[in-house]
Amino acid sequence: MSKNIPFSGLWAVILGGSSGFGFATAEKLAREGMNVAALYRETSVTEKVLLEKFSKLASDNGVTILPYNINALNEDGRSKFLEKFSAENGLSNHKVKLLLHSIARGNLKPLAGTEGVSDVLSTEDIQFTTYAMSNSLLDWTRDILKAELFHPDARIIGLTSEGAHKYWDGYAAVSIAKASLESLAKYMAVEFAPFGLKTNLIQAGITDTSSLKMIPGSEKLLEIANTRNPMGRMTQPEDVANVIYLLCTDEAFWINGSIIHVDGGEHCR
Amino acid sequence: MSKNIPFSGLWAVILGGSSGFGFATAEKLAREGMNVAALYRETSVTEKVLLEKFSKLASDNGVTILPYNINALNEDGRSKFLEKFSAENGLSNHKVKLLLHSIARGNLKPLAGTEGVSDVLSTEDIQFTTYAMSNSLLDWTRDILKAELFHPDARIIGLTSEGAHKYWDGYAAVSIAKASLESLAKYMAVEFAPFGLKTNLIQAGITDTSSLKMIPGSEKLLEIANTRNPMGRMTQPEDVANVIYLLCTDEAFWINGSIIHVDGGEHCR
Amino acid sequence: MSKNIPFSGLWAVILGGSSGFGFATAEKLAREGMNVAALYRETSVTEKVLLEKFSKLASDNGVTILPYNINALNEDGRSKFLEKFSAENGLSNHKVKLLLHSIARGNLKPLAGTEGVSDVLSTEDIQFTTYAMSNSLLDWTRDILKAELFHPDARIIGLTSEGAHKYWDGYAAVSIAKASLESLAKYMAVEFAPFGLKTNLIQAGITDTSSLKMIPGSEKLLEIANTRNPMGRMTQPEDVANVIYLLCTDEAFWINGSIIHVDGGEHCR
Amino acid sequence: MSKNIPFSGLWAVILGGSSGFGFATAEKLAREGMNVAALYRETSVTEKVLLEKFSKLASDNGVTILPYNINALNEDGRSKFLEKFSAENGLSNHKVKLLLHSIARGNLKPLAGTEGVSDVLSTEDIQFTTYAMSNSLLDWTRDILKAELFHPDARIIGLTSEGAHKYWDGYAAVSIAKASLESLAKYMAVEFAPFGLKTNLIQAGITDTSSLKMIPGSEKLLEIANTRNPMGRMTQPEDVANVIYLLCTDEAFWINGSIIHVDGGEHCR
Repeated sequence: MSKNIPFSGLWAVILGGSSGFGFATAEKLAREGMNVAALYRETSVTEKVLLEKFSKLASDNGVTILPYNINALNEDGRSKFLEKFSAENGLSNHKVKLLLHSIARGNLKPLAGTEGVSDVLSTEDIQFTTYAMSNSLLDWTRDILKAELFHPDARIIGLTSEGAHKYWDGYAAVSIAKASLESLAKYMAVEFAPFGLKTNLIQAGITDTSSLKMIPGSEKLLEIANTRNPMGRMTQPEDVANVIYLLCTDEAFWINGSIIHVDGGEHCR
Repeated sequence: MSKNIPFSGLWAVILGGSSGFGFATAEKLAREGMNVAALYRETSVTEKVLLEKFSKLASDNGVTILPYNINALNEDGRSKFLEKFSAENGLSNHKVKLLLHSIARGNLKPLAGTEGVSDVLSTEDIQFTTYAMSNSLLDWTRDILKAELFHPDARIIGLTSEGAHKYWDGYAAVSIAKASLESLAKYMAVEFAPFGLKTNLIQAGITDTSSLKMIPGSEKLLEIANTRNPMGRMTQPEDVANVIYLLCTDEAFWINGSIIHVDGGEHCR
Repeated sequence: MSKNIPFSGLWAVILGGSSGFGFATAEKLAREGMNVAALYRETSVTEKVLLEKFSKLASDNGVTILPYNINALNEDGRSKFLEKFSAENGLSNHKVKLLLHSIARGNLKPLAGTEGVSDVLSTEDIQFTTYAMSNSLLDWTRDILKAELFHPDARIIGLTSEGAHKYWDGYAAVSIAKASLESLAKYMAVEFAPFGLKTNLIQAGITDTSSLKMIPGSEKLLEIANTRNPMGRMTQPEDVANVIYLLCTDEAFWINGSIIHVDGGEHCR
Repeated sequence: MSKNIPFSGLWAVILGGSSGFGFATAEKLAREGMNVAALYRETSVTEKVLLEKFSKLASDNGVTILPYNINALNEDGRSKFLEKFSAENGLSNHKVKLLLHSIARGNLKPLAGTEGVSDVLSTEDIQFTTYAMSNSLLDWTRDILKAELFHPDARIIGLTSEGAHKYWDGYAAVSIAKASLESLAKYMAVEFAPFGLKTNLIQAGITDTSSLKMIPGSEKLLEIANTRNPMGRMTQPEDVANVIYLLCTDEAFWINGSIIHVDGGEHCR
């Protein structure tokens, strides 16, 4: 009998499971005995490496890890996933303990055209980014719920950022998307509570992930984070994965509708 | 020489100018000597009454009020307005002192389908509501700026609500839209400052407007507002219009990127 | 070997350990294998019952629970505790994993004298309440640190409330105290991080504790909480104790300077 | 008949009226026709210059400016002021339109003693700073109210700062004081509304005042403010005085319990 028993037979569905917070969470939860269904977009080259990692992680920890190279941002991708996943050998209903939304895809254009800048954010850019980072979580939640896959005491977790309420260069669409997500998560927390779902967001500190690198001036953000963080280093994906694990425990039952800062205290200054 | 001289020859463009905050603002600004271009959607019956009011308001105060029964939520409507307005006799460039966004149009469906509820918020509902209440402000700002109509020290004002950060029944899409708007306004405040624009939002208290009445349970909100408001009554459109006027004065020059609560202190409890 | 090993030999110092959140935390941590030093003010009658509970809790879980009927709000009380506790058989340095501040003592008078109300909040009332609920945490932290009792990776946890930012009848002094605490906790998070301390606050939902009962109109708060809470019941001390336990785990290492809502989503509406 | 008539015969009581925001407000309000009672602490040398400025300001604008070199932070000072001011020739009851609290006095010590730092914030330091910057406003409000000096529609204005919610070196006591003030102001807004008082705070941007200069690292704050402010310069006392004037107008009647950012948009990034 191991301490992993609490999560035995349960599943995490991770949207964006091939890198960053998503992958770190897959690692942590696997070590804690939870099975993982990881969705991601990768080329065949990068996927090969990933599948090897997943395979080792699964066998090391005696869990199942299912990879889905599927577009999580359209209905077709969702249907395909749900069909395949539901048909999975040994999966019975009500076993999804966690739905983690860790998709970072968005436009990084300015709002205002200044000299030499012709490409500004369009309504479509904002809508695309908001769907990718926010509204898609609602669609996924509803479909998994409808498919009766959620555990009676399940967790929905998304990721917000300091930029939701603060100006960063080129970050307008993402900021809008994150602000949308914060509102959506509050409403989901209330409306899905009767279904046993607890919806929370994590506001991670500046982390050196591939999606951060796309933000103009991210080197400066990273540099500042190193000196600004009271803990003397910047946030690692593992720091966040640890808290996602904590939110899956029974003791986190009463946390709902919250935004939890996981940044070593970086947001304090 | 009158006290109205500061606004003489200047214009307010009011999106949603036929009722509620928009109309009250038209009244206040006209009394302070500012011309008004009011956009709205009305039937010919209701428009007739409106046009009479506008006409009286204009002659009483010696200003021009231009009515535009135009859909402010699509590109075609914007173009049509800009074309007509720019051609207006006597209008020279750089005369728009205020762009007020007072459009309340959105879906009021739940997120989660419960028994007997089949019609839940779709992605399209959220996108439509968000465009109407938030992103459309960006399009209008950019187009008026491009047309060189903004005064060198102009004001952009939008309306947010307590529901941006708080659960109200059926308000999910509007909450998301308002949260988006709060983020958008911060980014606009930064990026459009070099063009002389100051972007701010007003968070009005619960006001008995036609758009509030559409919210499920609005009677309860109104009832609560009456007892909850420390001033002993609920917010009137005129209370808000007065502050919009203040934000247009030279003394408000340094207010930018702010959310100003105009609710008699209602938000304090 | 048990799962309790992580906390074996470690101590929680609980200010206000005889009831409410403090007592529930003592229970939870004892069950998880942590020793507890509980400070409180009780009469000999109520203390007798308490000591029996502590005794059973200790023997059931194989931990030590030390009761200190001491005033935690003055220097003398602190010194007395530190002297006694440091002399405890088997206590070596750097074993205090948690300092929990769960002291609720304050004045509940109005700010403004109205007819029939002569007793309004004085500066001394505000200072007393603020010291009890906020600044005393700083004194305790510094003294335990100076005595070299803190574990190299220790936790400081305090309790804030929704009333820090919202008007409740008679709650002015407590509101001020809680707002002070929120600021203090942020500064402690930054300045004590180099000493290995992680400082966080929990904002619990409305809980039926003895301190809540003292708030004028608390029955109404409790009644509202029951219908307002998306989880369909109000917060229990155990819900909060569970999260305090989570914050003591290694996985919570990177949470610092945060306010964690533990209320089932109540704050969302 | 002049535009100044609205304020004719009315008074502003300015705590901290000899420099910074307080002095700039005296200047602006005098120009708008309001009389000013300015409290301050100055040496006879600096006071001489000040009195000349006040004298010129008064005669230029046809208003009365009364200087009070009095300690506003104790009961004795308050009594002395109220006695003198009430006896003022021509002052009738209910003429104080504005009470402005612009006192910046506080300790700038660290919380944690590190190597070479022995002098850390004591409870007394925190209480002194909090009284000076926050609670004293309550005492002043109650005493002026009791003396029946407030206008039936009067304004209470205090100053908060970004540091209330953000770590700045050495700013712990001031941060706590400002957080206290934000809570106090909300409660005052509710409890004093029935007496006709509207209580609001202004969060000014970084301004180059004598009190800012005392903050360790203020040069860095100033330097950052210059580049960070979307308007391309830092905040001037006049920018803030202008908004204090606006809050005194009839149109600001419905603003109560608000925190108004007056910083050119600086807080957005």
